Amino acid sequence: MTGSRIGGPVRIVGAGLLGASIGHALVARGVDVILHDASRSHLQLAIDYGAGRAAAPGDAPELVIVAVPPDVTADVIAAELKAWPLATVTDVASVKSGIRAELEVAGADIARYIGSHPLAGRERGGAISARADIFIGRPWVVGEGDALRRRLVEDLVIDLGAIPVSMAANEHDASVALVSHVPQVVATLLARRLGDAPVAAVGLAGQGLRDSTRIAASNPELWVQILSANAAPIAQILREYRDDLDAMIGALDAPDAPGARRAMAELLAGGNAGVARIPGKHGQSNNFSQLVVIVNDRPGELARLLTEIGEAGVNLEDLRLEHSPRAQFGLAEIAVLPEREQALAAELEARGWKIAGEQA
Amino acid sequence: MTGSRIGGPVRIVGAGLLGASIGHALVARGVDVILHDASRSHLQLAIDYGAGRAAAPGDAPELVIVAVPPDVTADVIAAELKAWPLATVTDVASVKSGIRAELEVAGADIARYIGSHPLAGRERGGAISARADIFIGRPWVVGEGDALRRRLVEDLVIDLGAIPVSMAANEHDASVALVSHVPQVVATLLARRLGDAPVAAVGLAGQGLRDSTRIAASNPELWVQILSANAAPIAQILREYRDDLDAMIGALDAPDAPGARRAMAELLAGGNAGVARIPGKHGQSNNFSQLVVIVNDRPGELARLLTEIGEAGVNLEDLRLEHSPRAQFGLAEIAVLPEREQALAAELEARGWKIAGEQA
Repeated sequence: MTGSRIGGPVRIVGAGLLGASIGHALVARGVDVILHDASRSHLQLAIDYGAGRAAAPGDAPELVIVAVPPDVTADVIAAELKAWPLATVTDVASVKSGIRAELEVAGADIARYIGSHPLAGRERGGAISARADIFIGRPWVVGEGDALRRRLVEDLVIDLGAIPVSMAANEHDASVALVSHVPQVVATLLARRLGDAPVAAVGLAGQGLRDSTRIAASNPELWVQILSANAAPIAQILREYRDDLDAMIGALDAPDAPGARRAMAELLAGGNAGVARIPGKHGQSNNFSQLVVIVNDRPGELARLLTEIGEAGVNLEDLRLEHSPRAQFGLAEIAVLPEREQALAAELEARGWKIAGEQA
Repeated sequence: MTGSRIGGPVRIVGAGLLGASIGHALVARGVDVILHDASRSHLQLAIDYGAGRAAAPGDAPELVIVAVPPDVTADVIAAELKAWPLATVTDVASVKSGIRAELEVAGADIARYIGSHPLAGRERGGAISARADIFIGRPWVVGEGDALRRRLVEDLVIDLGAIPVSMAANEHDASVALVSHVPQVVATLLARRLGDAPVAAVGLAGQGLRDSTRIAASNPELWVQILSANAAPIAQILREYRDDLDAMIGALDAPDAPGARRAMAELLAGGNAGVARIPGKHGQSNNFSQLVVIVNDRPGELARLLTEIGEAGVNLEDLRLEHSPRAQFGLAEIAVLPEREQALAAELEARGWKIAGEQA
């Protein structure tokens, strides 16, 4: 895969999972990628894996991508804006309003800053886990700012296979509070209840508990930073959640009282309605046909699949990945218009892909 | 697969998912299975699918399995105890203490009753979704009672490929409140927050939100019954959960106050510790090697795999299924002792299984 919308050079500050993954994807497209990290060891590791090159005298980056921990993001952005007086600077931090506020207080040249946030990641961090394809098909929020500089960041997003979504910082922060930060808190507090439970009780756990607590295994240090940076929107949603929780506890305290069962039923039905709104969920994509394709767990394989679907002239309506952490391949569930499904399946099989399932 | 520990005939009352699945598994082992359902249509459907035969004059069941909705379970058990004065009667309801209490009040012959509960199921219900292998490798709680009759129920559990777990009714109910009912409430209330969220916000959702709300799609009618039947233990855990939630909201209300970040970090670390206690989770089975085997999505295939692992003389330490609802096969992640893994992989491949991955 070569050719890119952005020209470069692109300077990436922070050679962790996101920074190194962006580096891999851009290098694959032929872009000159300059990597930097406060840790020489992290930097060398990412370079060894092919995510870019070290900085050199005379570098003149067109775009700087700051991919460092949330706590230090604003400081690093301010320093990069100062160091490269012509460059557009973006970042990938998961909370945006606070960064803008800090940059304003610091008197940074905020006209050249465009905040952004890829809704992508892996459970494992670090340059070793970096992969060029983690952004493919994922939303990537691009914030407010100068139109030409926004377009540059959108070009980056498209080069990486992600979908640019325009959102101002405060709308972004309220949205991720709902779909990412509150779920993290809810799963964490649920998992906490297991801490001192009898072994026999925990032994009865099934897939439901596993799924609903999976994200509770996330890094506490990182999450303290995220929760602190987006505290008010998260707290507001948690208060609404607590109101429902109080209603449920009230119904359970007198389950035979008039109205108690109805209260439970309405809470449960509200959960049904909410889960049905999540994109890509079974039940929502009823208008599409599903193809399941086996994808080898090698960098670039998923990208190759999506490229070939595009070459077949078929629009991807939805994409979901099933991946067993111990299997050498994953399953890509692809939603397409029903009238295109048979032709696409035939085309993919002719190109050597294995179709694991179809469903109209 | 033929041969069974129990003799039969076995009478199953209720031809839904669990009843029909038990029927299929017993029929496959050569047991005479008598099916009954209050709905003639449900009954005939399950018989058509091969889950057993209709009742006939002169039937003398050794064991009666009541697999009807929670609300009517105690009444049906009492009627079955009366109808078959020599039979052992068990049930598969997910809450146990209330049933015992109701049977005592009704003056039923409780000496012949052994409560039980298979920790198994599928997202879809009904005889059409029934499968002989849904119990394989899953815990199946067997309650208090007469030793010989308990042994009969344990034989049933073993015949179905499940793992008998001894627990008195109250211990069972407290355990499932923790690992099943509270997770249901927590996921439901989280999904409810999505109900009136902006489309753009919901569009940012990823796998974390999908996983943590998946069970919120469950049937509200069934869950009103389950929550009502186990109200007190659930409410108690939800109160502890609410205490943690209050602590989190307090920290978020003043994230820069002394101690606030430490409070968040401790809650998050508690979530890490809790999730690490769930059996079968990555990270817990560090002492075992993992084999991932492709299993066709046909009734009996998983059972055949496990049988052949047993024939190879290898102990299964853990089992996890990855299954895409739209793929025609699943991935069975098998944990075995490291020194047995290579020989088992070779043996399974010789028998025609496809190994999708190995990890020491």
